[in-house]
Amino acid sequence: MVYRLGMEKISTNKSFGGEQGVYIHTSSSTNTDMTFAVYVPPQAKERPVPVFWFLSGLTCTHENAMVKAGMQEHAARLGMIVVLPDTSPRGEGVADDPDGAYDFGLGAGFYVNATQQPFAAHYQMYSYVVDELPELIGREFNADMSRQGICGHSMGGHGALTIGLKNPGRFKSISAFSPIVSPTNCPWGQKALGGYLGDDQAEWVEHDACALVGKADEKLHLLIDQGTGDNFLEKELKSHLLTAACEKAGHPLTLRMQEGYDHSYFFISTFMRDHMEWHAKAF
Amino acid sequence: MVYRLGMEKISTNKSFGGEQGVYIHTSSSTNTDMTFAVYVPPQAKERPVPVFWFLSGLTCTHENAMVKAGMQEHAARLGMIVVLPDTSPRGEGVADDPDGAYDFGLGAGFYVNATQQPFAAHYQMYSYVVDELPELIGREFNADMSRQGICGHSMGGHGALTIGLKNPGRFKSISAFSPIVSPTNCPWGQKALGGYLGDDQAEWVEHDACALVGKADEKLHLLIDQGTGDNFLEKELKSHLLTAACEKAGHPLTLRMQEGYDHSYFFISTFMRDHMEWHAKAF
Repeated sequence: MVYRLGMEKISTNKSFGGEQGVYIHTSSSTNTDMTFAVYVPPQAKERPVPVFWFLSGLTCTHENAMVKAGMQEHAARLGMIVVLPDTSPRGEGVADDPDGAYDFGLGAGFYVNATQQPFAAHYQMYSYVVDELPELIGREFNADMSRQGICGHSMGGHGALTIGLKNPGRFKSISAFSPIVSPTNCPWGQKALGGYLGDDQAEWVEHDACALVGKADEKLHLLIDQGTGDNFLEKELKSHLLTAACEKAGHPLTLRMQEGYDHSYFFISTFMRDHMEWHAKAF
Repeated sequence: MVYRLGMEKISTNKSFGGEQGVYIHTSSSTNTDMTFAVYVPPQAKERPVPVFWFLSGLTCTHENAMVKAGMQEHAARLGMIVVLPDTSPRGEGVADDPDGAYDFGLGAGFYVNATQQPFAAHYQMYSYVVDELPELIGREFNADMSRQGICGHSMGGHGALTIGLKNPGRFKSISAFSPIVSPTNCPWGQKALGGYLGDDQAEWVEHDACALVGKADEKLHLLIDQGTGDNFLEKELKSHLLTAACEKAGHPLTLRMQEGYDHSYFFISTFMRDHMEWHAKAF
């Protein structure tokens, strides 16, 4: 790893009148280089524009949503910056799942700050996404950081919900596609939270959307799309747990069960327009 | 290779209310298995719908446009089937570029029927795209084969223009993104046509859009988008040659030079709406 002063451009492509860029910087949170993508709409030439965060799911990098989700069209029309962080630290010396499994380690940072070694050395994705990257975005782009929204898919839906709920006042809007709504209650989440945070489940519930809605003072209306044909719904995603938690807490939730849709980007791209318009309305 | 009776489904994903499928069949043209993608819009449940062919460029398979071009949204709105063929035969025994170059052999069939060995054994992409695959599409999907349009990118733009011009009455509309307009006049084309068709340049001009507009009886208005920031414009694509050929032949052409756009799918997705609406209008 070379220590980089500030961010460096990897690539830019003109897209819908704006610019899709990929950048790299040295993160002091993860102590690694981190790559991320930013779409800047044409309106940002004239004025600061709101920021739409999209957190990706297991196995993804910044690239999946950048090429598959069809966000640029909507971002250009609605006038918003899109930020796509990576899903974990990467590079030399970054620990991975001991068996190389896809659901832990590389590509699976779960948006928490690990306390357990060897992961604690680099897996500080909560601080990276909540503190360090926003500071960089605010400094380097024509972003109106008083108007931010957050969204994500699967593990990234978990990230969007938990980061949104844990930072009242930060976001105008929160939404998710097929999120892991309760990592304390599913195999993916139990493995990740145990591995990164250790055995004390009091730490785990700090990163469980169902637990967090129970104590949220700011009751931002949540929008969630979930496909009924999603192979992970029953065992991992369990959206009904969030419905129950929101009902109990009096937290407003729109959960749309989308008939026949699966867990893929074909599902995400279909409903991305609705999500981005939902966020634009909140801005 | 297993000889397959008819086509087999590899995957389907619900997308914009329709179905994005990937299929495989044994081609009698290429004497290989061939994979292709078809998007079927919701309207096809009710009635036969027109067919939009999209031919991809060098190095691509059926998959690039399927995940990056954002076609499904437009196809669903406009009610058209999208067919995405592969760009070459593949598999055991299929000859490749002797140096493994990206611009010849695998992923680079150039939509011609090779006459030169070892390529002639499998590289019969013209017959595959013009005869065999349409017959399969008409049989297996709710397609109105009296309403077809053809489009493509780069090498696939060359394919769309030449196949469109060589088959009068077949297509209602022809368009292209950053096409190779005159393969007889650029390094990519000269290498490919020489390798597949041999040294007789009388064979080459049968696959040169600039030559073909000169003898086209059916003067379908051509729509072409070309990025001014495209690295391949000057040496390979040379859109000005088509402008000149169309002027000479009195062939209607709308060539839009798109400021700052490059050769990527970020460019294609930006203007895909315009192209698909252009085709829908012709249907």
